[in-house]
Parts: sequence; C-alpha cells; structure tokens
Amino acid sequence: MSKLKVGIVNVTGYAGVELARLLSRHPQVKLSSITGRSAAGQKLADVFPHLAEIDMTISAELGEVDLAVSAMPHKSSAEVIVPLVERGVKVIDMSADFRLKDGEEYPKWYDFAHPAPKLLRQAVYGLPEIHRVEIAKANLVAIPGCYPTGALLALAPAVKEGIIHTDIIVDSKSGVSGAGRTLSLPTHYTEAVDNVRAYSVHGHRHLPEIVQERQAMTNASVSVTFLPHLVPMSRGILSSCYATLKQGVLGKKAEVVELYRNYYKAEPFVRVVDKPPETKQTWGSNLCLVYPVVDARSGKLIVISCIDNLVKGAAGQAIQNMNIMLGFSETEGLEALPVYP
Amino acid sequence: MSKLKVGIVNVTGYAGVELARLLSRHPQVKLSSITGRSAAGQKLADVFPHLAEIDMTISAELGEVDLAVSAMPHKSSAEVIVPLVERGVKVIDMSADFRLKDGEEYPKWYDFAHPAPKLLRQAVYGLPEIHRVEIAKANLVAIPGCYPTGALLALAPAVKEGIIHTDIIVDSKSGVSGAGRTLSLPTHYTEAVDNVRAYSVHGHRHLPEIVQERQAMTNASVSVTFLPHLVPMSRGILSSCYATLKQGVLGKKAEVVELYRNYYKAEPFVRVVDKPPETKQTWGSNLCLVYPVVDARSGKLIVISCIDNLVKGAAGQAIQNMNIMLGFSETEGLEALPVYP
Amino acid sequence: MSKLKVGIVNVTGYAGVELARLLSRHPQVKLSSITGRSAAGQKLADVFPHLAEIDMTISAELGEVDLAVSAMPHKSSAEVIVPLVERGVKVIDMSADFRLKDGEEYPKWYDFAHPAPKLLRQAVYGLPEIHRVEIAKANLVAIPGCYPTGALLALAPAVKEGIIHTDIIVDSKSGVSGAGRTLSLPTHYTEAVDNVRAYSVHGHRHLPEIVQERQAMTNASVSVTFLPHLVPMSRGILSSCYATLKQGVLGKKAEVVELYRNYYKAEPFVRVVDKPPETKQTWGSNLCLVYPVVDARSGKLIVISCIDNLVKGAAGQAIQNMNIMLGFSETEGLEALPVYP
Amino acid sequence: MSKLKVGIVNVTGYAGVELARLLSRHPQVKLSSITGRSAAGQKLADVFPHLAEIDMTISAELGEVDLAVSAMPHKSSAEVIVPLVERGVKVIDMSADFRLKDGEEYPKWYDFAHPAPKLLRQAVYGLPEIHRVEIAKANLVAIPGCYPTGALLALAPAVKEGIIHTDIIVDSKSGVSGAGRTLSLPTHYTEAVDNVRAYSVHGHRHLPEIVQERQAMTNASVSVTFLPHLVPMSRGILSSCYATLKQGVLGKKAEVVELYRNYYKAEPFVRVVDKPPETKQTWGSNLCLVYPVVDARSGKLIVISCIDNLVKGAAGQAIQNMNIMLGFSETEGLEALPVYP
Repeated sequence: MSKLKVGIVNVTGYAGVELARLLSRHPQVKLSSITGRSAAGQKLADVFPHLAEIDMTISAELGEVDLAVSAMPHKSSAEVIVPLVERGVKVIDMSADFRLKDGEEYPKWYDFAHPAPKLLRQAVYGLPEIHRVEIAKANLVAIPGCYPTGALLALAPAVKEGIIHTDIIVDSKSGVSGAGRTLSLPTHYTEAVDNVRAYSVHGHRHLPEIVQERQAMTNASVSVTFLPHLVPMSRGILSSCYATLKQGVLGKKAEVVELYRNYYKAEPFVRVVDKPPETKQTWGSNLCLVYPVVDARSGKLIVISCIDNLVKGAAGQAIQNMNIMLGFSETEGLEALPVYP
Repeated sequence: MSKLKVGIVNVTGYAGVELARLLSRHPQVKLSSITGRSAAGQKLADVFPHLAEIDMTISAELGEVDLAVSAMPHKSSAEVIVPLVERGVKVIDMSADFRLKDGEEYPKWYDFAHPAPKLLRQAVYGLPEIHRVEIAKANLVAIPGCYPTGALLALAPAVKEGIIHTDIIVDSKSGVSGAGRTLSLPTHYTEAVDNVRAYSVHGHRHLPEIVQERQAMTNASVSVTFLPHLVPMSRGILSSCYATLKQGVLGKKAEVVELYRNYYKAEPFVRVVDKPPETKQTWGSNLCLVYPVVDARSGKLIVISCIDNLVKGAAGQAIQNMNIMLGFSETEGLEALPVYP
Repeated sequence: MSKLKVGIVNVTGYAGVELARLLSRHPQVKLSSITGRSAAGQKLADVFPHLAEIDMTISAELGEVDLAVSAMPHKSSAEVIVPLVERGVKVIDMSADFRLKDGEEYPKWYDFAHPAPKLLRQAVYGLPEIHRVEIAKANLVAIPGCYPTGALLALAPAVKEGIIHTDIIVDSKSGVSGAGRTLSLPTHYTEAVDNVRAYSVHGHRHLPEIVQERQAMTNASVSVTFLPHLVPMSRGILSSCYATLKQGVLGKKAEVVELYRNYYKAEPFVRVVDKPPETKQTWGSNLCLVYPVVDARSGKLIVISCIDNLVKGAAGQAIQNMNIMLGFSETEGLEALPVYP
Repeated sequence: MSKLKVGIVNVTGYAGVELARLLSRHPQVKLSSITGRSAAGQKLADVFPHLAEIDMTISAELGEVDLAVSAMPHKSSAEVIVPLVERGVKVIDMSADFRLKDGEEYPKWYDFAHPAPKLLRQAVYGLPEIHRVEIAKANLVAIPGCYPTGALLALAPAVKEGIIHTDIIVDSKSGVSGAGRTLSLPTHYTEAVDNVRAYSVHGHRHLPEIVQERQAMTNASVSVTFLPHLVPMSRGILSSCYATLKQGVLGKKAEVVELYRNYYKAEPFVRVVDKPPETKQTWGSNLCLVYPVVDARSGKLIVISCIDNLVKGAAGQAIQNMNIMLGFSETEGLEALPVYP
C-alpha cells in the first residue's frame, strides 16, 4: 500500500524545519510537498544544510496531499487553511488561528477579524492528553501554543481532581527558538546571551488559550497570571506553576504525586518524574516531564513541567496528532530519545 | 592621611575575587590582606590571571586591618568572624552566618549550631535601602543573600505601603556563578548549558531570610513561596514576584508605579524602570532594576527585579555597606557602568 | 532470528550514554548489558533521566555479549578489553588504547606501558572511510579520537592525491563535552562560558594519532602542528586545516573541490559542502562536513571539517564500525538527521 | 581648567556604546556630544538602559568638540570625518576608512572609491605599541581592526627580531559582538549558539591591514593566511598564529619567551603570560594577553593572543590613542580590571 502524502505549508521557520526533520523519517507517511514563499524554487538543502538528505524543492503552492500541516504565522495560516479544509484535506495548524473557540478573541489578541469563525467550533484543540478522542475524529486540529502545552499538562491532574483553588500563576522560561527565525533585536545573539528577561508583561497571546482550556476542565471561572521569560538557550520551556492547595490536601504529599502518576500512567509522552526535571532532558524529543511538589509551608502546589518547545511544543505534537488522526500508533516517528548533553 | 586597611577573608571564590577587583580600585581604602586556605602562599595573579595587576600574595591568616570582609562559606565564616569582632575589627560577612536573627534557624537550614547567638542581635542585615541608619553604626554587617536582595527590593515599596496581601510568590532565575567556584555536576558546563532547572524545591536556604525581612517590614505573619532556577549564564538574577493587590488598588496602575518611584527616588543603586528590565543591564554593576506591573486581569501585582548576583548580590553590596560604615560616599568605588553587551 | 547482543563497558560518561541512546534504537542489535563502576546497581534512568525509556540496570561486570564497546578511559580500557578479545568477543574500543601501532608511544603520551603490544598490530584503526576493508574483518577496532576523525577526513583526499606538501597545521575548536563528564575547573560552567582557550599547547594526545595515520597515507615523513581549543558549546568540533599547495595546483580551485567530491562520493557520512560548514549542522548526527578552499593569495589549501564529537567523533563512529564488522548496512541506527537549531 | 570636549559619531552600535561607557567615566575629558542617525532625538537611556546614568540626548549632528571619535561604518565614516579634519578637529576613526595606506585597496576590499586618498598618508595607524610616536603627533588616527590588533601584537616581537619566516597563518576565533548590532541570520541567537563557523573564507577585509602592517615591520614581502571564526560568546578574540621558526631558534624556547617579555616590558596593556591565555581574562578591559610557544616537533612558533574585541579591539584602543594624542597618561580611563567570571 502506498504511503499517505503529507505536506508542510511554510517549511522555512524553525517549526517547519523541525516538522521536515521528523516527517522525513516517519515510517508511515511520505513528505511530498513543502512550501515557503520567500524560498520558493530553492532546494531545501540549500536553505537548510542540516536537511541535505531530504531531496526536495521548496515550492510556492502546496501539491496534492492527504494531510497538510501549516507552519504559517497567524492570520496567514487561516487564509491557507480554510480552502484546504473545504476541499476535504485533513489539516493540522501550528498557528494560533484555530485554537480559540471564541472568534471575538482574535481582534483583541491577534489584531485581525477571524475569516472563518464557524470553523473554530469544528477545530479540535490538539492536546492529545486532554482531547484524544476528538482528535481521532477531527479534520482540523489546532496545535496548542508551546507555553499552553507545558502549563496545561502541569496543571490538568490537579485541576481535574479538584485539589487546587482557581487562582493560578504560571511563570515560564523559554529558549530563544520559540521566538522564531525572524530577526529581531531581542533575539540577536549578543542581546540574548548572558541575559534573562520577562516579556509580554501586559498579556501574552498564549494567555487566552491557557484560560480557555483551564476553564473547560471544570467549567469554573478562573484567574490565570502568566509571565513568560526568555533565557539564553535555543530549545526548551520550563514552566513553574503555582496554585493554592485546598484544605485537607496539604499534608498529603505522597498522595498528590500518586494522583499525578495515575493521571498520566498511560501517556506515552508525559512522564511524572521524581526529581526536578530539566529542559535538557527533553532536547529533541516529544516528552513532557512533570514534577509536582507540595509546599507545606505556604500551602501551595508547585508543578514544574519541561518540554522541547519545537517538538512537544510544536512539530512533535503535530505529528502525535497526525498519528491519532490517521490511525497510526501514537508514537510513530517520535521514538527518538532526547539528545544529551 | 593614610588609607584605611581592608582585608578579604577567603579571596578564592567568585565573591572573593569580585571583592578584590572592586576594592583594588576603591579610592578610599587599601586592600592590604587577602587570605585563602588552599591557595595560601600563591600570588593572586597565578590563581586569578585577570587580577594580575594586583600584586599581592594570598596568605593563610589575615593581617592587621581596619575592616575585614569575609567571603568564607557559612559556619566557617562565623568561626573566623567572632574573634575579629571581639578584637574590635569592623566586619562585613558575606556568608549567611549573621543574617538570621533567630539562632534556632541555623540548625534547621544550615546544619550547625550557631557559635555566637548573641552576636546575631548585634549584627545588622546589610540591605542599605532598608537598614541604612543601623548599618552606619554597625561593627558587624551581614550581607544579604543574592536572592533576598532582589526579592526584598522588589517587594519593599508594595509591602510598606500596604497595597498587597501577605501571600507572596518569588520565582527567581539565577546565573551559574551563584553556585560558586566549587565543582559540582549541575554546574559542569555541559550539564548547565542549554538548560533550565529549578532546584531546592523543598526549601532554599534564602527562604527564612526573605521571610524574616518581609515580616519585619510590617510585623504581619506572611506566607512566602520561593523557587530558584538555574539558567545558562554566568551572572545575574531576575526575580519575578507575585502578590495579590488589595481592593481599591487594582485600577491604579500609574499610582503603583509612582509609589515605587517615590520610594526609591533617593537611592543611588535602585532604579525603577519603565520597560521590563534585563539582567544584562546590570552586568558588573551594583544596580538593582525594579519594574512593577499591575495585572488587572488577575488582580495581581507583578514586580520584576534584576541584579548582578556577584555585585549587588554580594561584593558590591559589601562595598556599599563598607562605604556607609566608614562614612564614605555610598557610591565610592561602585561608579562603573554595566558592561554591555 | 534473535538479535545479536551488544554491551557497553562504562556507560556513565558522555560517550557511553550517547552509545546507549543510539544502540537502544538500533534495529539489528539488542543492548543487553551496561556496566559502570561507580553507578553499579543503579537504574540507568536514575543516573540519566533522558534515557528513562531504556529499562536497564547498570552492572559491575559485563554480561554475555556478542560484541562489546568500551567507553572506559585509557589504560583501564585495555585491561578490560584484553580478556574479552582473548575470549573471542568482538570489541570496539573508544579509548586510545589500541589506536597507536607503536607501543612505545604509550609511555610517552599516556603514561603507561601497554599491557598487550601484540594486540596493537591486530587492532584496526576504525576510520571506515580509510580502513573499511580491514574493519570488516577485524575483531578489535580502535575508534579514532574525535580530533583525528575531523582532521584526517579533512586531509585525506589532498594527501592521497598528492596535491599538498607534508607540513600541516590543524587548528581545532571543540565543544566542552569532549572533555567528558568528570568535573574540572576549566569545564566548570562559569569558567567555560563566554570564553575561548587553547589547551595542551605543548602536545595533545591526539597528535601521534594524526601523525601515524597521515604518515600511513603516503609513507612520507610529515610535520603536523596541532592546536586544540575549547569553545563554549556542548557538542561539535570544527577543524581548520592548513597546508601548502604544490606547484601547479594553485589556480585549480574547481579541480580541488572536484577531487574532494570524487573522493567521498560513495561515503554515507562524509559530505563535501559548497558553503563553509557549521558544527550545528551535524548536531546529534554521524555526519562529517568537509569544505576545501584554495587560498590563491598565500598558496595554501584550507580545509574545514565539522563533526559532532560525541557521534562521528565517538559513539556514532563506533556504531558505524559495528555495522561493518557485523555485516549490517553501514547506516543502520544512524539515520537520524541533525537536530537544528 | 575646563575639560576637553569629546564627541562620538554614531553612538548606537556596540563600539559606540562601549565608547560612551568608558568616556563617561574618563577623568580628563567631557563627553559632550553623541550622534546617531536613526535614534536622533532620543535619550541615550531610552535606547541603552545600561547607560541610564549618562544624561544625554542623541543628536543628528555633532556639536562643537575638541576631539571626535567615529564609530560609523566604513564609507560613511570618511564622509563625516573629512570635513572634521579639515576644520581642525582631532579625529579618531574606528572604521576601516583610514587604515590602509594604498587607496587602491578600498574599491577591492570595501567596494568604494576613497574620497580623500591624500588623508590616507596623513592618517596614523593607531596601534600604540607600534606607532606611539606618530600617534602623539597625529590629528587623524585610524583604530586598527579587532583581528589585526590581536594578530599584530602576537607577531610583532617575532617579526621584528627576525626569528620567523615570512609565511604566516592566523586562525582567529571571535565572539559575536564583533559582527555588530545590525541584525543578520548568522548572528541570530538560535543560529549562533552551540555553533562554530568560519566565515569570509575567500578573504576577510582585515587581511590587507594585517599584510600592510606586517610588511611595514620589515619591508619584506610576506604571505598571510587569515581565517576568522565565529564562536558563541559575546566578547573576545583569541588568535592562534603559526609561523616557521628560523634555523637556530628551534631549541631556544626560553629565549623566545624572554624576547617577547622584553619587547613588551614597558607596555601598560600588553601582558606576556606564562599560561595559555583565555579571552575571559580580558573581558571589559583594554588588555592584550600574548603567549608564545615553540613547537619543537614541527619547528613552528605558535603565538596565542587574547583581547576584548570591543575594548582593545575598538573603544578602549580609541581611548588609549586619545590619551596619547591629548598628552594624558596612556591608561587614563582604562584602569578597570577585567570582569570575571
């Protein structure tokens, strides 16, 4: 039987090349088309020498594919995706364009009116650990943002089991690749190295996404404080999440850890660890490491999670969703172990 | 008139050499004696080539000095300091040995019984922005830990003006020099690079210090959650502090910033900034940058502070204290601008 | 048919864990035994969380295996290997203990008398691009040092085709993982970051190896100047090699490049590139990128090569050799593309 | 007596802000005017928060000054400088526009016809260790490129004393700040980190400068091979220089070192060291560390030099020249010790 054909829309960013790297080694699909406006006509190897073994030319338009993954920036992504969905192509979107259920949020957070608000209801939020069943039936999946992925996986067990109050603080530390391949002063080497800074202090675009999905877990009204930081490394996000434990849970350190272990025991890509995790332990892999701690002194639950922002936070998660949508084993093409050190 | 003589006890760690760098250029004192057990007998230049212009030999014992700064590790520091204080030498201690007022805390946090609990009451906590008057009269000053320095300066205005509740979260990101020059696996280059990790998740030694000083500001009982993280850079600490704003303050973004500006308007080393600060902006200088933000969505006050952990977080703060103790201008020897990029 | 059993002697260094990472995913062999003195009895996952998916316990002694790879330090490696070879186990040694043909070199460069000088003649220098035929028949292969790998692959075509004189300069820049996982001051994070330094300026241990193999290419007496440098990154070696071009070759830029391309055209892991290569383009992969340039102004041939020191410079090369020794396809288990950025 | 007024033309690059940092603390001059086209009208503190203590506004045009330092890019620099020189203002140029004596080199290496070839003869090449006497009398000084500074100081003693042949190889490793503050893909954080690459492999613009000054030392025809590399750190250049020793010098290791020590014994900013130097040992200071080694095996002299490219390689060297031109002590304003670690 011939392999299903998969295409990448906009291969030229970091998420795009990471997709190409992973898809080119996927045993069940064939990477058959890659697009990229500015680089159209060039060999992939000329733009990205590390992918020299993939003998493909970047084209302006997507060829015939069974499934397309969009690595376009927001707004442009929706423009490309809507006609694809209408044509019956399965689509996975790595942009924010189909993550939010409420179309009104787009002008507020992304400065554009959503072109297809109806599709927002049809789209599934592609966090398999929460929405696996819907993903399996979806023809349009929105890959979560990198920060929401780490934050939601850190919080889900505590929220769903009702052991914390609704006021949550998420303090995230991200490597610089999260800011993409587009040049900017804060991501200029000499500015980013030897440096830590917070950014988007008045509201990061991933906030409404965290709120929406957190809310959906319990239908409660919630308060989320989210502050992202840029740290000098290329890959990785560590999120430290803080919430107040409910009465009666405080003394139960072991039970809380057990609750987390149970919650994720069948998950191939989430590992509840017993020592504080490090982003380096996920480098190049689709893992999410989760570490819950009860701080009895202050009555807080602290949960730390680590991911590789380009894999579990983007391209790897896209492939995990693809595997589910296409009926493959969920780990197909994602078995590589983290590269350390 | 001849210059006052200053000595450094244990010059061979990062705080010690930073002291030597700064004191050797101080216009009002003479660095006259430096000790270091393992390196005794060696020229300073042989152990630290960057200090080659300081022509001094490391000795086993401190010579006659008017003021001594100890860069010994905790426990050993007290052993060296007690006889000095008794002899009438003014002493500045960069270890934790005289920071905590309650001697009972030492066995709990530092695993030793304090040898001179009486001196704990006499010692002044050397955060000039809070305790300047007492420092001027002190003969024993305990330099705050690097984390407490950044956290307390971030929180002091809000706490003293009573605009936040007592439950505080401090999420700190530190460069690796904070862990010192002693070899360890987490600070081995290939382990620390490309990596972020939390550590001391069950309680860092700087926590009781933050609690003590926070408590002293209002005599209220407080709750502090403190989580330090190691990030891949050599110098710098950025602390993100979170607290719930009291009713009535929420809408008042500008007033909160104004309150901070007023509080620090006469301080030579604290600057309230109007853009999110970066650790790089303090590199090599004694500055503390403070940035308060009202997060109206969640009702939180977020305050971000940045310092160079080896300067304002250690050696620079020691010199600032020395200047106050000896009646010099507070900025003497500390005028150098940050080295950027 | 059951898979061949492979063991790793001393899994606890960087080359050892890299071997484990790669072998655990190798489709033709089973990683069946791992040893490590200090960590014996511990689960691999406890010592190296990134390898948590490999459910193995580190043992003190090697179990029954068809082939063993030693990641022991020099001297200890020979002690472990000699009895294995005598027992008929195929052995791949990643230490220096069987690289040099002349046993007299060991006291000079490695401070020990070689315990089995006879085996030195039997051992094959495991650079497949030069010694593939012998490797296929060998039962003891010595994996080249990381520096010699890059230097020899850069120089081989020019040397073998006789276009350069015998006086060669190799200036190499290595990431810090090359220095291993053993703690030392120069590899302490705060010492290695923001820093470049040359080391072993009076003669690095990889020099005799480069000389031996260079010499063997033409049987000429040669002069090699080799200077390694430590640069602040974890993986990668870039070697810049300089030699004087012979008369008549100077004007022939294109021919020199063509000569290189021809020389390596059938090699799966050596790629002659047409833009200056970067170590990042090999990260995590077994590639060696080679870039020859004719500097007509000075009459020099400059050849730049890049490898990942832990893969093509150690563990990957070991597996490439294993594949040849065991009759597998040479790329088996080594197909992963470089991880970028 | 009022201080002399100094201006910076184009303060907004890395060399420009480094000049501002150093000049603002210089005891003998007053930084009175700073220009910068794109940032004209802005407060210096708003563009460069680390310089917040310098209360100046960036202007479009230079005010009245006694001496101007240009940090303009090449070509534009000459356009600004020529009228200043004609007006009798003393000028120090940090661009390449007055470094080369032969005007014909400019179209070849810098793609423009020199607008004032006559001034090329009048301009002095501002390497004080070689041209101090002329600098003292000059009204136009061209600050050497960062690479030539390190290379020439490494080679001068050997060349002038005639102990090496004329064929020289210079392999340099530079931090990323040398590429300036202008955005580019190779200096994007995620591209530059964890990476080493050679660049300008077909001829870097600093080559003719090295050749010119090397040639001038002995009036011999020389051959220079120069290859620069980018390494992941912000500041610092380490140059490894290789030359063949003349007959009779080979055995004389100690004499060669002695010759170097003698040559530089009166220099305030060049230190001949007895252990391999590290770029970190010069961070933020005007030092050049020089380390000569005789490689008896290959008959080569290896000389390693380290500088901070923004200080001795740019702004610090400019101030050193200014001090000489204005009759100040040569070290005025440059006494700060390196910042380590």
